[in-house]
Amino acid sequence: RIDGKRLWNSLMELGAIGATPKGGVCRLALTDLDRQGRDLVSSWAKQEGMSVTVDQIGNIFMRRAGRNNDLPPVVTGSHIDTQPTGGKFDGNYGVLAGMEVIRTLNQHNIQTEAPIEVAVWTNEEGSRFVPVMMGSGVFCGAFTLEHAYSATDVDGKNVRDELARIGYIGEQKCGDHPIGAYYEAHIEQGPVLENADTVIGVVPAVLGLSWYDCTVTGFESHAGPTPMEIRKDALQVSTYIMQEVVAIANRYPPYGRGTVGQVQVMPNSRNVIPGQVKFSIDLRNVSDETLNRMHEDLLAYLEQTRQKTGLKIELERVSYFPPCPFHPDCVGEVRNASAMLGYATMDVVSGAGHDAIYAARLAPAGMIFVPCKDGVSHNEIEDAKPEHLEAGANVLLHAMLASAKV
Amino acid sequence: RIDGKRLWNSLMELGAIGATPKGGVCRLALTDLDRQGRDLVSSWAKQEGMSVTVDQIGNIFMRRAGRNNDLPPVVTGSHIDTQPTGGKFDGNYGVLAGMEVIRTLNQHNIQTEAPIEVAVWTNEEGSRFVPVMMGSGVFCGAFTLEHAYSATDVDGKNVRDELARIGYIGEQKCGDHPIGAYYEAHIEQGPVLENADTVIGVVPAVLGLSWYDCTVTGFESHAGPTPMEIRKDALQVSTYIMQEVVAIANRYPPYGRGTVGQVQVMPNSRNVIPGQVKFSIDLRNVSDETLNRMHEDLLAYLEQTRQKTGLKIELERVSYFPPCPFHPDCVGEVRNASAMLGYATMDVVSGAGHDAIYAARLAPAGMIFVPCKDGVSHNEIEDAKPEHLEAGANVLLHAMLASAKV
Ligand SMILES: NC(=O)NCCC(=O)O
Ligand SMILES: NC(=O)NCCC(=O)O
Repeated sequence: RIDGKRLWNSLMELGAIGATPKGGVCRLALTDLDRQGRDLVSSWAKQEGMSVTVDQIGNIFMRRAGRNNDLPPVVTGSHIDTQPTGGKFDGNYGVLAGMEVIRTLNQHNIQTEAPIEVAVWTNEEGSRFVPVMMGSGVFCGAFTLEHAYSATDVDGKNVRDELARIGYIGEQKCGDHPIGAYYEAHIEQGPVLENADTVIGVVPAVLGLSWYDCTVTGFESHAGPTPMEIRKDALQVSTYIMQEVVAIANRYPPYGRGTVGQVQVMPNSRNVIPGQVKFSIDLRNVSDETLNRMHEDLLAYLEQTRQKTGLKIELERVSYFPPCPFHPDCVGEVRNASAMLGYATMDVVSGAGHDAIYAARLAPAGMIFVPCKDGVSHNEIEDAKPEHLEAGANVLLHAMLASAKV
Repeated sequence: RIDGKRLWNSLMELGAIGATPKGGVCRLALTDLDRQGRDLVSSWAKQEGMSVTVDQIGNIFMRRAGRNNDLPPVVTGSHIDTQPTGGKFDGNYGVLAGMEVIRTLNQHNIQTEAPIEVAVWTNEEGSRFVPVMMGSGVFCGAFTLEHAYSATDVDGKNVRDELARIGYIGEQKCGDHPIGAYYEAHIEQGPVLENADTVIGVVPAVLGLSWYDCTVTGFESHAGPTPMEIRKDALQVSTYIMQEVVAIANRYPPYGRGTVGQVQVMPNSRNVIPGQVKFSIDLRNVSDETLNRMHEDLLAYLEQTRQKTGLKIELERVSYFPPCPFHPDCVGEVRNASAMLGYATMDVVSGAGHDAIYAARLAPAGMIFVPCKDGVSHNEIEDAKPEHLEAGANVLLHAMLASAKV
């Protein structure tokens, strides 16, 4: 069994880097704070005698040798970048649960057949740079290194320069080594486990996701003298599209999700009719069919709005991954380990994307969810109970041992 | 008659300070560019032998002595701050038409009975700092100097510090001197004159204006796992209010105006359901009664939305001035001067606020409108014809001479 206190202390120590007044964390990908977090986690790995390597997209691989190092490693991991108003657990828990597995094996002098690896994937959140889950996406070949390098933040800074600036542009080629199996522990980020008072979520699948940038172009003019009937108000037209995003999600229950999270109004002056509005659209669902229908509904609504308003409406898809069912072997190991440890489990489909969905393209993969307070994540008040985090890490330990063989 | 070419050249020279690639101007109030513009205009006044004084809110008064300097001056003026994506004419024309009046009087050695003053009012646009029409508002006592000083921009910089920084915090007490009459020449900023192919707009009144900040507070959470039915999406609720702003304006034609120009979404991340949205509301109409009813309609809709959604919705009024009819004497002088000069006129109610509405609280006031291309203002492509600008300045000259007496 892992040491729950040691795990908690590590979470708090990492959570202090970029801590916000309300108890959350703001540690955006490839900032100086991200570098500090990476340095801390790497130093812990070295203390445990692990080898630490960094690949070209900045993914960190921390490896504990096995008895047979020709075998592909059993990998766990997650991310340590956060939302602008994020919490201490999202991502960080997956990395530090992996670290806790290593510490426990070292403490008990347990050797595994296959090597064990803990990965810190670059820019999972996607809030500073898209595509989301960038590091694991490049690693598994979902998109190219060049595509990722050229992504820019709102200030026009790109991924390659920012990686170099914080010293985390490695030599290792992305995706150079095979993976035997992949596990990821994570807080649920939704209310299902807490409502059912259940400790361990077995994750059969992850919702597919489509992200878009939508740009509506009207005509800037003065809010006073311009009569209502001749306006081309880009914001007003945008509000109807924003409402449709929610309507589309409601049309495909129970897993349909539709969110507009980011909006930029130009010129953003109170007495100017907005000339242009740019906003994000996030659509999710559990099956290819429902996600495709949501996509088609969106296109149809935009076409109808173009015709009705005469305004220019552009839509660009900026991120996409299909719904991802996990491998029965790994899902089974999570179930077995939980049963062996005596934890109640239930199936929870993940509404959030995770690095595991890209790892799943290279090897059998599975995830372990633990409850978070009020189901809240991507919020500074995100919280989780030490005993739940401990239980999840124990399941991770035993699922990995089953795959890596003792 | 004034010199149209000289007027045009001055407009172009001032328009070069803060020029934008698309032919507009970005010279926000109390920036370094504003200081450069102020320095240029003041230097022109000194060349014409005028005295130049600055008051505590940064209004610049450039005075040409009369025969009897105990008489209150006949004043003209406007502003030289612009919108973030503004034009070369809005405001600037009023100041430089005044300067052209002075140059013409000097050139022809014409002495007036009363002194003549050209004013440059501070922060008329209100896009960096509210209240709008700040300098003339403090001068006429519509609000206090302290209230204006404490206004902050989005970066938290306040008016007093910014005035001091650019060296335009004067010694002169605000509102220390009486005004005999006030005239202001301005581009129409709307389509009426151009559509009617008429050179001079006589302005009987200015629409009253109510500006608000509206803040909707929901609950931040993750765009993926959070089911649609438990969301408290501050942006979705805001979109309905934004649509109602337009609906309210349409309910009180023909002068009802409703605009949301500025929006701030928090935390503004594409996979976070917005926890808080702040946006501006701009309502206008021609009578106290219609403007009050629009205000009441807004309050009623917000109350209804609070009850329906359970979200916190706050509304703060940040600027207000009632509809302003101009003085029959000044309106008459504008009409007389136009007739004498042979220009066609028509009445045009001003949809935009102007410093003249505050001056009108201290003395008889009137305005002169000239057409602008496609009725467009608060846009970089704002444009006006040299011959129209010349005509307006000629009307200004003769209206002022009538009030100041030769
Ligand atoms: N787990 C997580 O927060 N992932 C971010 C990507 C997403 O929005 O699903
Ligand atoms: N003339 C002008 O653009 N004034 C700005 C204040 C307003 O929005 O009416």
